[in-house]
Amino acid sequence: MLATVLHSKGDIRCEEVAEPKILKPTDAIIKLSASCICGSDLWPYRGLQPMDGPAHMGHEYCDAVVEVGDEVKTVKPGQFVVGSFCISDNTCPHCRFGFQSSCEQREFMSAAQAPYARVPLADGTLVATPEIPSDDLIPSLLATSDVLGTGWYAADAARVQPGSTAVVVGDGAVGLMGVLSAKQMGAERIIAMSRHKSRQDLALEFGATDIISERGDEGVARIKELTGGVGAESVLECVGTQESILQAINCARPGGSIGFVGVPHGVQLDGQRLFFAQKSLLGGPAPVRRYLPYLMDLVLNRTINPGKVFDLEVPLVDVAEGYRAMDERRAIKTLLRV
Amino acid sequence: MLATVLHSKGDIRCEEVAEPKILKPTDAIIKLSASCICGSDLWPYRGLQPMDGPAHMGHEYCDAVVEVGDEVKTVKPGQFVVGSFCISDNTCPHCRFGFQSSCEQREFMSAAQAPYARVPLADGTLVATPEIPSDDLIPSLLATSDVLGTGWYAADAARVQPGSTAVVVGDGAVGLMGVLSAKQMGAERIIAMSRHKSRQDLALEFGATDIISERGDEGVARIKELTGGVGAESVLECVGTQESILQAINCARPGGSIGFVGVPHGVQLDGQRLFFAQKSLLGGPAPVRRYLPYLMDLVLNRTINPGKVFDLEVPLVDVAEGYRAMDERRAIKTLLRV
Repeated sequence: MLATVLHSKGDIRCEEVAEPKILKPTDAIIKLSASCICGSDLWPYRGLQPMDGPAHMGHEYCDAVVEVGDEVKTVKPGQFVVGSFCISDNTCPHCRFGFQSSCEQREFMSAAQAPYARVPLADGTLVATPEIPSDDLIPSLLATSDVLGTGWYAADAARVQPGSTAVVVGDGAVGLMGVLSAKQMGAERIIAMSRHKSRQDLALEFGATDIISERGDEGVARIKELTGGVGAESVLECVGTQESILQAINCARPGGSIGFVGVPHGVQLDGQRLFFAQKSLLGGPAPVRRYLPYLMDLVLNRTINPGKVFDLEVPLVDVAEGYRAMDERRAIKTLLRV
Repeated sequence: MLATVLHSKGDIRCEEVAEPKILKPTDAIIKLSASCICGSDLWPYRGLQPMDGPAHMGHEYCDAVVEVGDEVKTVKPGQFVVGSFCISDNTCPHCRFGFQSSCEQREFMSAAQAPYARVPLADGTLVATPEIPSDDLIPSLLATSDVLGTGWYAADAARVQPGSTAVVVGDGAVGLMGVLSAKQMGAERIIAMSRHKSRQDLALEFGATDIISERGDEGVARIKELTGGVGAESVLECVGTQESILQAINCARPGGSIGFVGVPHGVQLDGQRLFFAQKSLLGGPAPVRRYLPYLMDLVLNRTINPGKVFDLEVPLVDVAEGYRAMDERRAIKTLLRV
């Protein structure tokens, strides 16, 4: 089959690879009619993350089960399923505590930018829909697999409450999903920090009430202005740089919460500063599996339309253009049609 | 009057000073029959905190109001009151959000190791008892002013729940109050990390179910052993060093919470490590004022006896011995009789 392989910095190809096979009795094989490119795929694409040889890319996935291992009990061929980018058994103590992204058997999904993919720990990882969903829902269901689930976790970790004020730092796909999530959780005011017109527009469509283009200290000053000098109860940090994390901390009110889901790169936090700031911090890879049944329902009953975050769609064979467009920030998120 | 003045490193004296006066119409003057020495008083005593000339020490206080400024409305002379070590107006947005220790008008109390003390923002800061309490309750009421309130905040920030497992890092007075607090909040298992017999005994008396004398990686390994390899839902960090904070983070389970109340000294946290640890962090000066009415009730109805944390009692004139005993760890916490 033709699938996506990253050979080295900037060298992404759609090339012939072996079809995936059941390797363990707990595996499932799914076929994909669509896949997508994640912001985190850009780290190795940009040469900013060490690679151990050519990498089969892609960790967001949904669609039909075609084969299952002997021990798989909860899904069967023909069912439409969605899974998290974090593989989990959903039975270990960490999973039962709702942190499936720290599962004792955690693996990170890979090789999903392809017509077929192997999903380990299928029983724990996959959630089936009651019936085969309409084709037009596929982008939104695909989004639940990572980008929406991650934005949702940011809002959850930032303890967004009905009537509260939430600030979203970062206007990438995850930040925009954070806006949508805060809206669903009932935030009354959602302030998106964004400088890009197309992203600002989408943020407003997803529920942002205010847009701020300033960053750093100026951005913090604007947030203070908009909140009567107080700061926000909840801040969703969706970038992961030193500047963005400090910006997020400084936008929150004392006693407020920051959910940080941008993987920190080169971030150091001073303990005493954090102490006197008196703000709650929780981050990490999102426990998407916890939210998946709920988020899938929201999509299936058409309450939300997170698939709108895909503003570029290319066939899998043109994957290189999909990466380039995201790298150059011409696209927020690329859908790959298989 | 005779009161405590720290002149320089190690040079603490009880000497003649002017009696406090009402300086602002929102002030109150209280008389004290007892005061005490805080672990944080040892920072300047040990020369580890810069001093701006001689300092009138002491920030824990309770007892009778003797005079109030013209604008004070909620307390009056003759009432028995307790206040937090953080002065707060209790009306600003941060106070109303429950974080009085980040009050817009916050001041830190001082000069309470004395027969009389001035309390600014008396209406916001002081809580009166319904009647004059029995003398034997004074040590416990004094404890609510800071050390108990701080231990309580550690447990609250660590989200101790009924039936949960809590670990307490640090066996100073605050750590011991953290044990008592976790017990009151219904923790089923309370693991105190302590190496000192007298402190271990007090921890057990306050509700600890397990004592661990190992520290660092060994301590973490013991916690994992005791929790089936999982870690604790809640960890109370009551020290403030790099080692103790990392120990606290590593003792918590993924998705668990760390309440840190030891003022961090020289602590740096790596963002990416914190991200993948996936644990919630909240610290800061304790918003004691939020808890004060509840904690005072627990003392007044004799549900708790936090005053037991005072294992040395000296007259105010012997304050130097009180500091020495704590500095040398001969005493957990010193009560000063005025």
